[in-house]
Amino acid sequence: MHILIIGAAGMIGVKLTNRLIKDRAIGGKAVDKVTLVDVVAPSRPEGAPFAVATEAVDLSEPGAATRLVADRPDVIFHLAAIVSGEAEADFEKGYRINLDGTRYLFEAIRKVGDGYRPRVVFTSSIAVFGAPFPDAIPDEFHHTPLTSYGTQKAIDELLLSDYTRRGFMDGIGIRLPTICVRPGKPNKAASGFFSNIIREPLAGHEAVLPVSEDVRHWHASPRSAVNFLIHAAGIDGAKVGPRRTLSMPGVSATVGEQIEALRKVAGESVVKRIRREPDAVIMKIVEGWPRNFAPVRAPALGFQAEKSFEDIIRIHIEDELGGTWVK
Amino acid sequence: MHILIIGAAGMIGVKLTNRLIKDRAIGGKAVDKVTLVDVVAPSRPEGAPFAVATEAVDLSEPGAATRLVADRPDVIFHLAAIVSGEAEADFEKGYRINLDGTRYLFEAIRKVGDGYRPRVVFTSSIAVFGAPFPDAIPDEFHHTPLTSYGTQKAIDELLLSDYTRRGFMDGIGIRLPTICVRPGKPNKAASGFFSNIIREPLAGHEAVLPVSEDVRHWHASPRSAVNFLIHAAGIDGAKVGPRRTLSMPGVSATVGEQIEALRKVAGESVVKRIRREPDAVIMKIVEGWPRNFAPVRAPALGFQAEKSFEDIIRIHIEDELGGTWVK
Repeated sequence: MHILIIGAAGMIGVKLTNRLIKDRAIGGKAVDKVTLVDVVAPSRPEGAPFAVATEAVDLSEPGAATRLVADRPDVIFHLAAIVSGEAEADFEKGYRINLDGTRYLFEAIRKVGDGYRPRVVFTSSIAVFGAPFPDAIPDEFHHTPLTSYGTQKAIDELLLSDYTRRGFMDGIGIRLPTICVRPGKPNKAASGFFSNIIREPLAGHEAVLPVSEDVRHWHASPRSAVNFLIHAAGIDGAKVGPRRTLSMPGVSATVGEQIEALRKVAGESVVKRIRREPDAVIMKIVEGWPRNFAPVRAPALGFQAEKSFEDIIRIHIEDELGGTWVK
Repeated sequence: MHILIIGAAGMIGVKLTNRLIKDRAIGGKAVDKVTLVDVVAPSRPEGAPFAVATEAVDLSEPGAATRLVADRPDVIFHLAAIVSGEAEADFEKGYRINLDGTRYLFEAIRKVGDGYRPRVVFTSSIAVFGAPFPDAIPDEFHHTPLTSYGTQKAIDELLLSDYTRRGFMDGIGIRLPTICVRPGKPNKAASGFFSNIIREPLAGHEAVLPVSEDVRHWHASPRSAVNFLIHAAGIDGAKVGPRRTLSMPGVSATVGEQIEALRKVAGESVVKRIRREPDAVIMKIVEGWPRNFAPVRAPALGFQAEKSFEDIIRIHIEDELGGTWVK
C-alpha cells in the first residue's frame, strides 16, 4: 500500500509516521511506500522499512492536490490545517487552507476517476460544536461552531460525507479531543495550559495555571490520536454508514482532577510546581469549549482512548520521558 | 430601504415581491427600491409603489455578486438554488450554484466593508437532516444530509453563521418545510405528489398518489413561507444569537390525514379524484425524508405556520382559486 500523509511535519504526523515504521502495515496490509508532505518538507524518518518520499506542498495552491493524488495513494491521512487562533486572526487564510485546501484535495481525488476510491482519514475537531452544550455532547448534537476554524472543519466534514456517499472516495472523519499531554515547549494556544501543567512540572519546570480548578475539558493522549488514525484507516466503511465523521472517545476531567492525577502518579513535589495566575481572557475563551462527550458510535466501532487522566500522564512519561521524571 | 431578491423568478420570489408591493414596508421601514434578479430576468410586477429593477444574473459567475451588492441593499433575500434532483444529477453544477454562488455573495458583502452589514435572509431546507430521525427532529439535531443539495445548504448555513459572527453581515437562515399546496402544474419532483393530491382534485383533475397513506411529512403553505421571509427580514438579530439558522414551524401530517382534511374541506367528490398508483422508487426516496419537527426557537422568535392541514388547504383555495373549487 502507498500511504500519503498531508500535514506530516506536525506533532501527530511525525508520531503517525513512526507508528507506520514500527507496524509496517495497516489493517493487515503491508505498507510499501509513504509520501510525507507539509508546507515545509517533513524530515526524512530513519529506519523506514518502506520507500519514503518527502515534499513541501501547499495544498491550497491550485494543482498541488492533483499532483499528490496522481499516483493514486491507497490511504490518505489529511491532517493539515492552520490552527484555531490563526484561522480566527486571518479570516482569508483560514478559509483558503482549511476549506479550499481540503476541497481541492477531494476534487482532485474525484477527478482521478477510473474506480480510484482511496480511504481518506480526516482529522476534524470538537470545535465543530459551540456552546451552550448539554452535560455530555451526544453523537447527534448539532454543529454550530463559534469559531471560523470550527466552521471550516464542519464544512470539511459535510464534504467528506457527500464525496463518500457519491462514491468518489472512502472518507472517515475523526473529531479529536484536545491532545494532552502535548510534548514540546509551552505554546501560546489558549488550550496550552491543559498540557503545560502536566508536562512542565514533570520536567522540573514551573507551569502557569490561568483558570480555576473546576474547568472541565475533554482529553486524549497523542498515542490515542495515532491509534484513532490507524484504526480509521483500516475500518470497514460499510459499518460506519453514511455519517462519516465520529466523535472520538476521550477522558473528561476538571483541572482539579488533572492535578490530583498528577499528584497520584508523580507526587506532591511535582504538583507544587504549578503556579495559579488567573487570566480573564483565557477563562472567557475556555467557557465556550466542550467539557464532556458521550460518544457511542466510535467505541462501538472499536475506537479506544484512555480510561483515566492518570493513564494519560503515565503514557506521557512512557512515550516522552523514558519512563521517569524530575522528582 | 433597498431590497434585493436573488431567485426572484421562482414561486416564492414572485409571492414575496407581491407581498412587498402590498405591505410597502418591512419591520415598519418603508421600501424605496426592489431589485429582482434570477438566472432569467424576472417579470416586472405591476403596481409597485417603489422603484423596481430587474436583471438576469448568474450568481455563480465571478463578479456577479460584487455588482449586485455594489449599491449596498439593506435587505438581501437569497432564495436562489438549483433543486435537490438537479443537484444530485449534476454534481458540479450543484456545488457551483448552491455552494460557490452563495459563498461569492457572502464574500462580496464582506469585501464592501466600510460598515456595510446587510440583513441576509437565506432559505435553507430540511434536507440538511438525514435519516434515521427521532420521531420529531429537535432544534439541536445534527446535520447529516443524504443528498448533495442538503450538503450544500448545510455548508451555506455554516458560512452564514460565521460571516454573521465575524460582523460581515447580519444573516438569518430559515429551514423551510415542504411547501404545500404548491401552485402550478404537477412537476416531476419526487415530493410533487404532496401538493398534486390536493391541487389537482380541487381543479377537477385526477391526481396520482404514489405512496401509502401512512407516509408522514412536514408542510407549510406558500403564504407561510412568505411570512417566514418577511419576519426573518425584520427580526432582531441579537435575539437570534449565534445559531443563525432556524427550523421553521409547520404541520406534520400523514398522506391519510392530508386526504381526510381534503374530504372535510372539499367533500368526497373531490377526494375521489385521487388515484392510488404505488411507485417503489418514490416510496424509497420518501423514506429518507424528515417526517416531523419539534421547533422551539422559531416559534419563540415569532415565526408562525398553519395549525392544521385543513388550514393549508383553505389557504390554497383563498390564495390560488379565488375562494372556490370544482365540486
